[in-house]
Amino acid sequence: MRFINRLAILGAGSAIAAAVLVSPVWSEDMPSEKPMASDSAALSTLDLSLDQAHVILAAAVAKSKEIGTKMDIAIVDAGGNLKAFVREDGAWLGSIDISIKKAKTARYFDMNTGEIGKLSQPGGPLFGIEHSNGGLITFPGGVPIKSGDTVIGAIGVSGSSVENDHTVAEAGAAATK
Amino acid sequence: MRFINRLAILGAGSAIAAAVLVSPVWSEDMPSEKPMASDSAALSTLDLSLDQAHVILAAAVAKSKEIGTKMDIAIVDAGGNLKAFVREDGAWLGSIDISIKKAKTARYFDMNTGEIGKLSQPGGPLFGIEHSNGGLITFPGGVPIKSGDTVIGAIGVSGSSVENDHTVAEAGAAATK
Amino acid sequence: MRFINRLAILGAGSAIAAAVLVSPVWSEDMPSEKPMASDSAALSTLDLSLDQAHVILAAAVAKSKEIGTKMDIAIVDAGGNLKAFVREDGAWLGSIDISIKKAKTARYFDMNTGEIGKLSQPGGPLFGIEHSNGGLITFPGGVPIKSGDTVIGAIGVSGSSVENDHTVAEAGAAATK
Amino acid sequence: MRFINRLAILGAGSAIAAAVLVSPVWSEDMPSEKPMASDSAALSTLDLSLDQAHVILAAAVAKSKEIGTKMDIAIVDAGGNLKAFVREDGAWLGSIDISIKKAKTARYFDMNTGEIGKLSQPGGPLFGIEHSNGGLITFPGGVPIKSGDTVIGAIGVSGSSVENDHTVAEAGAAATK
Repeated sequence: MRFINRLAILGAGSAIAAAVLVSPVWSEDMPSEKPMASDSAALSTLDLSLDQAHVILAAAVAKSKEIGTKMDIAIVDAGGNLKAFVREDGAWLGSIDISIKKAKTARYFDMNTGEIGKLSQPGGPLFGIEHSNGGLITFPGGVPIKSGDTVIGAIGVSGSSVENDHTVAEAGAAATK
Repeated sequence: MRFINRLAILGAGSAIAAAVLVSPVWSEDMPSEKPMASDSAALSTLDLSLDQAHVILAAAVAKSKEIGTKMDIAIVDAGGNLKAFVREDGAWLGSIDISIKKAKTARYFDMNTGEIGKLSQPGGPLFGIEHSNGGLITFPGGVPIKSGDTVIGAIGVSGSSVENDHTVAEAGAAATK
Repeated sequence: MRFINRLAILGAGSAIAAAVLVSPVWSEDMPSEKPMASDSAALSTLDLSLDQAHVILAAAVAKSKEIGTKMDIAIVDAGGNLKAFVREDGAWLGSIDISIKKAKTARYFDMNTGEIGKLSQPGGPLFGIEHSNGGLITFPGGVPIKSGDTVIGAIGVSGSSVENDHTVAEAGAAATK
Repeated sequence: MRFINRLAILGAGSAIAAAVLVSPVWSEDMPSEKPMASDSAALSTLDLSLDQAHVILAAAVAKSKEIGTKMDIAIVDAGGNLKAFVREDGAWLGSIDISIKKAKTARYFDMNTGEIGKLSQPGGPLFGIEHSNGGLITFPGGVPIKSGDTVIGAIGVSGSSVENDHTVAEAGAAATK
């Protein structure tokens, strides 16, 4: 079926809408035999498993004990949704939310939270970004988790200095490939 | 009918409300031949259509592809309410909320978001404005959409550097007149 | 390396924690040669593409025009995050949020929103579930989107009767496989 | 007047509250031999350890696998603050928040969430209680965790029927004494 025919079905009134809706209509090199819309394929991707989350948590807890800290550790999956969490005995209550927000922030932008913080200072290009997404945390301690080149989640750690938080998060993220 | 009579109809209890509703009641030099309230004219205005939104989205997506970025793109209408949105495959999850907030911010104040950001720095006249309206975003990427001289909506773009975000937003806003 | 050795690394004090963290330690038939933690595999899965979202939106808009309604239509991906949205000219402003919440609710529980609503009535097993997740919508109009047997997202429609909302959502969800 | 007598006046039922309220600094007939304020004793109490949380999680996950469900499982400590969380692969995204809210609700009132739900139906004495505390969940799946007679936390489970949710929560709560 020709693309122009499908536009006709939708009617002249919505032609512009249809032109956009039936992606990738805006391409200038549209093939004359464009495939049916129903041929559009889902994206094939990867997501964090609970087994991976446990390996990551174990590595992070081990690092936390090694350097003598008490941490809140949160892990989110590819969709930015909480997958696993632990709070070590005696770790800060306020770090529950911070660790979760660090994990989400790292996944939301696929970079270490500390990198975002460099850009969100007064005068920086992202000043005020923390006001988005229900509250971001942009100091170190959030690190993406990858499988090969694909970001499949993130870990957020809070409970000590931001340097220690980052160290523990890195140890966790490095525990899976 | 005299104005005082109309107030009486509404009753003493709603006199204050009426005094506001039937503007300009508070004028002391109210003409004796003041027109009926029902003669008051509604504002004749313009609003963004979905067809326009699609044209704008298509132009923004084309620019995004041209410069090799992955963007979240939001469009709001004259009322600042979401009209259309797309997230390109692989674009940041955190940019969903940011693109929408950029579009709203641009329409809330009828100017580019980056202009507001210049005024909201520490020591600036609008410091802290991001705390209003459920969270504003005041760095570049939000641009008003006009029809002639009338602002009929705004576009917000997020997913790359703020310069790229602004470039894509401008391309979108320029696609309709 | 034997699993028991890895436990020893973590130390006796955290033995119980480790027993859980290094899933699936609680299995009673744990192999003596359990693979290294780093062997844990990511989940291979599918996600909604923007091309699919556009096909779905086009089908939903076409159905909406066919039955003479004005709809807000939202699409979320596998992670429950907004992928695309359109509001037809003249559609209810209050349906922006409802359509998005319907789409999220359908993905959050992988079922039609109306099914949840049957269970959340007074006296029903899920009474009050709407208070979770920042506000759910549990009347019809939200429908999961599948690729084969995998839920890859959901569509939420609001703007008319719940019967019409559901009809349009179904038409959208059926446009991709 | 002796302090013990003043407690008696208030009645046995509120003895504990009185012991705090009359903590007896504002008394006008303060005895000359009154102990220094700094002698006031803190409450000696118990709290959930992370090791216990892991034992509880392991028991809950084992029960979930045994009955063939996919669950979100949250554990809060004596302060009602998140201590540990896991989401089994494929478990509902919407159950993240629900499992956490069930755990909090069970600890907030030291009873099974289903018990509260019986009282919060239309016409019941607690109708509308779900609106408090940022959103409660009052259907089954939340169970207090005790050490002897002391409530030291709670478990919340969501992901299947409320009967299954409760079964898994009970299995978890029973894993520690």
